[in-house]
Amino acid sequence: MALGEFALIERYFSGAKPAGILGVGDDAAVMGVAPDHQLVVCKDLMVQGRHFFADVEPASLGHKSLAVNLSDLAAMGARPSACLLGLGLPSIDQEWVSEFSRGFVALCERWNCPLIGGDTVSTSGDIFISVTALGTLPPGTQDLRRSAARVGDDLWVSGYLGAASVALEILFGHVSASQQTLQSLRSALEWPEPRVTLGQRLLGLAHAAIDISDGLTQDLGHVLKASNVGAVVWPDQLPVDPQLAGFYPELVRRAVLQGGDVYELCFCAPASNRLAIEELGRDLKIKLTRVGEIIEGKDLLLQSADGIRSVVQPKGFDHFGEQP
Amino acid sequence: MALGEFALIERYFSGAKPAGILGVGDDAAVMGVAPDHQLVVCKDLMVQGRHFFADVEPASLGHKSLAVNLSDLAAMGARPSACLLGLGLPSIDQEWVSEFSRGFVALCERWNCPLIGGDTVSTSGDIFISVTALGTLPPGTQDLRRSAARVGDDLWVSGYLGAASVALEILFGHVSASQQTLQSLRSALEWPEPRVTLGQRLLGLAHAAIDISDGLTQDLGHVLKASNVGAVVWPDQLPVDPQLAGFYPELVRRAVLQGGDVYELCFCAPASNRLAIEELGRDLKIKLTRVGEIIEGKDLLLQSADGIRSVVQPKGFDHFGEQP
Repeated sequence: MALGEFALIERYFSGAKPAGILGVGDDAAVMGVAPDHQLVVCKDLMVQGRHFFADVEPASLGHKSLAVNLSDLAAMGARPSACLLGLGLPSIDQEWVSEFSRGFVALCERWNCPLIGGDTVSTSGDIFISVTALGTLPPGTQDLRRSAARVGDDLWVSGYLGAASVALEILFGHVSASQQTLQSLRSALEWPEPRVTLGQRLLGLAHAAIDISDGLTQDLGHVLKASNVGAVVWPDQLPVDPQLAGFYPELVRRAVLQGGDVYELCFCAPASNRLAIEELGRDLKIKLTRVGEIIEGKDLLLQSADGIRSVVQPKGFDHFGEQP
Repeated sequence: MALGEFALIERYFSGAKPAGILGVGDDAAVMGVAPDHQLVVCKDLMVQGRHFFADVEPASLGHKSLAVNLSDLAAMGARPSACLLGLGLPSIDQEWVSEFSRGFVALCERWNCPLIGGDTVSTSGDIFISVTALGTLPPGTQDLRRSAARVGDDLWVSGYLGAASVALEILFGHVSASQQTLQSLRSALEWPEPRVTLGQRLLGLAHAAIDISDGLTQDLGHVLKASNVGAVVWPDQLPVDPQLAGFYPELVRRAVLQGGDVYELCFCAPASNRLAIEELGRDLKIKLTRVGEIIEGKDLLLQSADGIRSVVQPKGFDHFGEQP
């Protein structure tokens, strides 16, 4: 017997509701926002064939579809409060939905971000996933918006870059690698960890932040444009994922500079906070690397160890844009 | 030249932002919530082939994709504050997007519900639309949740029922009608007017409300189940759309009782508020009809003018459920 829409929602997604929240099952969810807190809202779509392969492990898809939204909240410095899920499926495969919800709900629980509503529909073919995440900023804090970078700011990147992009190249058959290497790299692609705590802790330390979802040069380009500044990036300082040691340098360079799907934070902070940020990295056990600085102008420059500078065009993943 | 994702968002959807809201263009939108207001959030998906035909007028699709969400807010008694749009498109047809945004943004403006964020992706085939709407409830008010109906409440319906459902039957070729009749009926289907003001004005007057998106019997069934009550509905009192006068009575009866896509409100209110509700209807120039009452038990009963009662199964539109 086919499970109806309402049974589906009830069975897999109506977990315990936190006090004060009216969740799944009404026309809309109701939640309080603490006095003076600012609400932060984001929404990211994922579509089969574009953001994931049809045969991807459903638990990882559940995880990632929420992770990319929590990453957007993190890039604003917000604390997650709740999320909504829209799920378009060609048919009900209960095992698939059960696995998807397992990955999704585990991440909800880890970050205390309950699923409070949503919608499911049947599609004629592809799976699509639309998640909305809500978060809050504490009173009196300035969010880490893109337009707040200032000339003289240090440019920082969290974690390591490049693994997700190389995993994708292997999965597409553009690059060959052992099964073992692929397994290890694809966890960066399929189970990204949003930098939720880091984002909140950067409030008051950093001016601007962005998550590297579309590639460092493209995402940094958005910050530069919005802030009306330029930047110098030191490619030799970029934190290359150690797992990429055996790959062609040119492939690795492209993965690190242009590879999307990273969900590390790139942030701009005054030099006076440099020590505090290094201390924060040690405290959170997250590698934080200074990779450049914000300068006047509007160019994004790469400066190699020998001092030679080249201008780069922000390039990365642009839906509907020309494909490489 | 193809317009990239960011250019698309900027061109069509980044309207003037109200003061205090950081909107389209950052990782997330930021907005304040007035002290003690409760936040209300909903999310509805629409998929080509399931909720609309591929050749539907794009302006009406833009309108409707927001309207169904504002209708969910209305059913909670919430005042709209902002919305987010996720749009999956097989390709960029600038004229299509321009028309879609015209319908969407006009409704945003009418209800002072700015578009503050979202995401666009390319799909391999069908169009899908995912809208999230945010609203607020004023301090000290109880929302119109589904679980709050009480035995003895009057059962009310706003506006007229049946036109959207019959329009759909004509478009599917199940029923024949003149072009003129179809044109007139399909505006109910394609340009529904969410009962935003009515919903807010029902706070304090009604206990529970729901919008009739899936059909009166099914949606009322949700209220009965959540409130652990039953209901008697008087079919002869149901407000049949006057445009349906010439159609087969059985078709009309089914359209009125089971037809979805209506976006009128069905609400439960104590008999002591009957005069106030009639006055409200006159004030808003919205037909409000008393169509039954909440009773003990859990059945939904139809009681005809001669007093004969029959039990109905809640039936309407259930994605993934068995199709008629």
